[in-house]
Amino acid sequence: MTDIDLTASPRDTILDAAARCFMDRGFNATSIDDIASRLGATKGMVYHYFSSKADLFFEIHQIGMDALFKAVEPLSEGTDDAVSKLRAMSAAHVHSLIQTQHYQRAVAEGVQMHLRISTTRAQRAQLTRLQNRRRRYEQMFLEVLEQGIGEGKLRAEQPRIAIKPLFGALNSVINWYQPRRESGPGARDEVVEEVVRVALAGVVVPGKG
Amino acid sequence: MTDIDLTASPRDTILDAAARCFMDRGFNATSIDDIASRLGATKGMVYHYFSSKADLFFEIHQIGMDALFKAVEPLSEGTDDAVSKLRAMSAAHVHSLIQTQHYQRAVAEGVQMHLRISTTRAQRAQLTRLQNRRRRYEQMFLEVLEQGIGEGKLRAEQPRIAIKPLFGALNSVINWYQPRRESGPGARDEVVEEVVRVALAGVVVPGKG
Repeated sequence: MTDIDLTASPRDTILDAAARCFMDRGFNATSIDDIASRLGATKGMVYHYFSSKADLFFEIHQIGMDALFKAVEPLSEGTDDAVSKLRAMSAAHVHSLIQTQHYQRAVAEGVQMHLRISTTRAQRAQLTRLQNRRRRYEQMFLEVLEQGIGEGKLRAEQPRIAIKPLFGALNSVINWYQPRRESGPGARDEVVEEVVRVALAGVVVPGKG
Repeated sequence: MTDIDLTASPRDTILDAAARCFMDRGFNATSIDDIASRLGATKGMVYHYFSSKADLFFEIHQIGMDALFKAVEPLSEGTDDAVSKLRAMSAAHVHSLIQTQHYQRAVAEGVQMHLRISTTRAQRAQLTRLQNRRRRYEQMFLEVLEQGIGEGKLRAEQPRIAIKPLFGALNSVINWYQPRRESGPGARDEVVEEVVRVALAGVVVPGKG
C-alpha cells in the first residue's frame, strides 16, 4: 500500500511541512520560520501562499477531514449488511488516519483548541464548521450501528455511548502508530485488522460477525 | 458515588484550579494570573506555594498518575482469574479517569509535550520519569492480558497491539464525558459499564467472560 501523495504542488508541500511541524512541536510552539526551514525555503515563500499560521492550520484540518470522508463516505452508502459495512468503514478510517497521521494530529489538536478561548471570532466560526463536519462524519458510523441493531447483528446498550469508545479505539492509532517500525509489506494491514477487530467486537453480536 | 476530595489544603486548592485552567485553555494559554483569578486570589498567593507554571503542571501530572495507580494497582495483585481482574481494573481505571478528569487531560497533554522540544533538560527528565511510570501502569494491564491468553480466556493476535485500542477506548472518556449531563445516581456507573464492555469485548474469548 502506498501513501497518498500529498506533496504535488508548492502549496501542498508547505501544508505538508506545516502539518509535520505542528505534530512535532504543537501549534503554539511552531513558527512560520520553523515551517520554512523544514522546507529549506524562506519565510517569504510561505507567506506568498498563506497569510498566517492559523490559515495553514485550518487548511490542514480541512485536508484531514477530506481524506476521511473520501475514504469512508462511499462505503457508508452501499447496500451491504451493517456488520460488513461497519467493518469496511472502520478499516478505511484507520488506514486513512495512518496515511495522513500528521494531518490527523492537527485535527485532534484543533478539537481541543475549539474548547479554548484564544481564538478570534472568525476562527471560532471556522472551527465550528469543522466540528460540525466531524459530527456528520461520526453520524455516518452511528447510523450504521443503529441499522445493525435493527437487523439484530449489532448491539449496544446505548448506541450514542458505545460509539465513543469504539472511535476511541480506532482513533488511538494517531497517537501510537509508528510507520518506521513496519516490519514488512503486510505489517500495516495486520495492525489495522487487529485494531478494527478489537474496536468492533463490543458492538458485534457474537456469531453474527 | 462521591468524587475524591482533591481540595483539602490551600496547596491542593491551587492545584485543582490550575488543572481546571489547563483543561479549559491548554497549558500554554494559561497564566498564573488566570489560576489566581479562578481562586479569587492573587498571583503572590500562587507563587507562595509554587515557583512556576511548569511545577504546577508536573505536580498535576503526578496526582493524575497517583489516582490511577491507587485505584488499579491493588486489583492487579489479586488471585482472581484474568477476565475478572481485567474487568475490575478497567472499571476502576475509567471511574478514576472520570473522577480526576481535569488532571487526566493535563496528563494527556503532558505526553504530547514530551514529544515536543520546548522544555528544559530538567523538565524533560521529569517527563521521562512520568512517562516510565505510565508505561509501568500500562504494563500491569498487558500482564493480565497475557495471563488470560495463557488461561485460554482472553485473546489477541498481538497483545502489544491489542492493548492500544483497548486503552484508546477506555481513555476516550476524558475527552467526551460530561458530568453535568448525568441524569441520575446510577448514570455514571452505566456509562462506565458500557465503555468497559465495548473496550474489553475484543480481547475476551466468547463464552469465557
